[in-house]
Amino acid sequence: MTGFGLDHLPYGVFSVAGGPRRVGVRLHDTVVDLHALTGRAEFAEASLNAFLALGPEVWRQTREELTTLVPDAPGVPLEDATLHLPFEVADYVDFYASEHHATNVGRLFRPDQEPLLPNWKHLPVAYHGRAGTVVVSGTPVVRPRGQRVSTGSTNGGTAAPEYGPSRRLDIEAELGFVVGVPSSLGDPVPHDALADHVFGVVGVNDWSARDVQAWEYVPLGPFLGKSFATSVAAWVTPLAALDAAWCALPPQDPTPLPHLGPGATRGLDIEVEVELDGEVVSRPPYRTMYWSPAQMLAHLTSNGASVRTGDLFASGTISGPEPDQRGSFLELWWGERFLEDGAEVVLRYSAPGTGGGRIALGEVRGRVEPSRHA
Amino acid sequence: MTGFGLDHLPYGVFSVAGGPRRVGVRLHDTVVDLHALTGRAEFAEASLNAFLALGPEVWRQTREELTTLVPDAPGVPLEDATLHLPFEVADYVDFYASEHHATNVGRLFRPDQEPLLPNWKHLPVAYHGRAGTVVVSGTPVVRPRGQRVSTGSTNGGTAAPEYGPSRRLDIEAELGFVVGVPSSLGDPVPHDALADHVFGVVGVNDWSARDVQAWEYVPLGPFLGKSFATSVAAWVTPLAALDAAWCALPPQDPTPLPHLGPGATRGLDIEVEVELDGEVVSRPPYRTMYWSPAQMLAHLTSNGASVRTGDLFASGTISGPEPDQRGSFLELWWGERFLEDGAEVVLRYSAPGTGGGRIALGEVRGRVEPSRHA
Repeated sequence: MTGFGLDHLPYGVFSVAGGPRRVGVRLHDTVVDLHALTGRAEFAEASLNAFLALGPEVWRQTREELTTLVPDAPGVPLEDATLHLPFEVADYVDFYASEHHATNVGRLFRPDQEPLLPNWKHLPVAYHGRAGTVVVSGTPVVRPRGQRVSTGSTNGGTAAPEYGPSRRLDIEAELGFVVGVPSSLGDPVPHDALADHVFGVVGVNDWSARDVQAWEYVPLGPFLGKSFATSVAAWVTPLAALDAAWCALPPQDPTPLPHLGPGATRGLDIEVEVELDGEVVSRPPYRTMYWSPAQMLAHLTSNGASVRTGDLFASGTISGPEPDQRGSFLELWWGERFLEDGAEVVLRYSAPGTGGGRIALGEVRGRVEPSRHA
Repeated sequence: MTGFGLDHLPYGVFSVAGGPRRVGVRLHDTVVDLHALTGRAEFAEASLNAFLALGPEVWRQTREELTTLVPDAPGVPLEDATLHLPFEVADYVDFYASEHHATNVGRLFRPDQEPLLPNWKHLPVAYHGRAGTVVVSGTPVVRPRGQRVSTGSTNGGTAAPEYGPSRRLDIEAELGFVVGVPSSLGDPVPHDALADHVFGVVGVNDWSARDVQAWEYVPLGPFLGKSFATSVAAWVTPLAALDAAWCALPPQDPTPLPHLGPGATRGLDIEVEVELDGEVVSRPPYRTMYWSPAQMLAHLTSNGASVRTGDLFASGTISGPEPDQRGSFLELWWGERFLEDGAEVVLRYSAPGTGGGRIALGEVRGRVEPSRHA
């Protein structure tokens, strides 16, 4: 049981011994070169984008063909392959869709206020992140430098920031959705059209420097506290492999406005494990998220904004109701401890597969390197 | 005096009668096809990005050659050319670098607090915008729909939002900087390296739905209130054409931290005109901005975030100290009036040229169309 059997078949981009990048599909611990197997031009590209743009009918037919062809195809052992960023990221949007996470962070960042702000249950709050610093799993993460205000360094109400390596480096365990089919500027995507646009999902670690973020984030939101690195899995799991993972959302109260499809959208029963230096420290359950993937896409385009092939929108930190289900160290350790240099974090994801067992999504791995500049 | 003489030579992308897109340079009211003129492959592209990536030495040599070749080259009259988005936008970052604008907006959005938040004079506040909805001057702007809270509709402290066409559609007159040469992930760009990375400037209108923004923006910043459209000029003015426009910044107090190069960076003496339905309603002066272009780039990369070819970073609304120098209608009309359907806004920019006269940057034009969806 690898979690990468014929009921999964996630797509990625790989190369062998410095050769050209090719689109491949993973079967157990091998990669099958789809250009060699099918001769199709979109699989000779260095990213999945050309394939993603072809749309749901081609995705379906391709999956059907591969289910037949791949078991007999020659595969490259994973240890001989270099895995690359699987798609060119167009725009990256990060949501804030876990009620438990938003409540925990509200308590920590704004202890004198209600933890959930008045808009939170009316719309899935989100912001744009930096597409150019999305990196593939395994890429080292250099500890960012930034402005931060030391406790006790305020002077008569005037903050005195310093510039230096972040002392509060954290993760956010998230699930990301990868857009294949673009939409038109001016035309919102309806709440029942997720599968017309979204090809699949990837694990996401939205690395965060909490000290930098806390100082910079008013009034325009997080910027340098997040933009230094966001890690994504090397393997994109097609929505088709998650057919058995859909589940009911937790109740939404108050009822969202009609364009967000209240009662009509669903969640995903994906289990996440957060592993720090080889030890599982948390198990966030994706089924506890408040806002659904379809609601996130409907909201994102509800003002007429278009999506493009390669857009990535992520859920925000996945935190469940229990203390050992939190998807960030800020919440797990309540602001008292953060990541040291050399720490390695691995996010693992699993879901019910269509074959009756479980599939394992691509892992998201990253090791913290010391700041480079003195 | 067109403002587009030999001392300017801005670059754009054009096509004629449905033919292929080509890189061109503007001389007065004609466009010269640079692929036809030079045979260079980077000018047969549908965007400037390939040329932008070649770097300052190639930009300099090309400008020198064109100054000789262009006066005798055949030109296409502007009225026969279709102008396209001049570059593929990689990441779009929007700053908030005018003290007058930040103070005005702080008073309007947070009347019970100090208008400038504690971080504002320590770092150039910024956020990521939506790259995929940056459009070229002349593109109509469809009034966005969104969630907004009507005055008087709150009920026992619980806000009751509606979804409908924005009633507070606004502009932001800005100046944008276009990155040519990428930087490496993990390595900040020093405060004296602007010209090693930035190719040139464009006018920017960051259309804003103030009612949507006011409801959504806490705690992660503006999202749908901005992401429906951002207009940029069709012509990118090379920094080389602005050699005579550099000027001193207003004093910065407190002194910024060393990585932001206090005292070492400069502003640009660019005059902006905001025209509404044919009438000039404001004249924001870019020389009054608090944070410099070099400081914005140094800050943006100070956490190790990399820049890519095609990155656009904009100044934020340009507002001077006088009431008739404000770069948004929110400030000009103090929240009492906004844009109607059919309104046309044109932003015009001029600067001292190297030839002793003035150059005119590319205009940024947009007309408001009614919301499309009932």
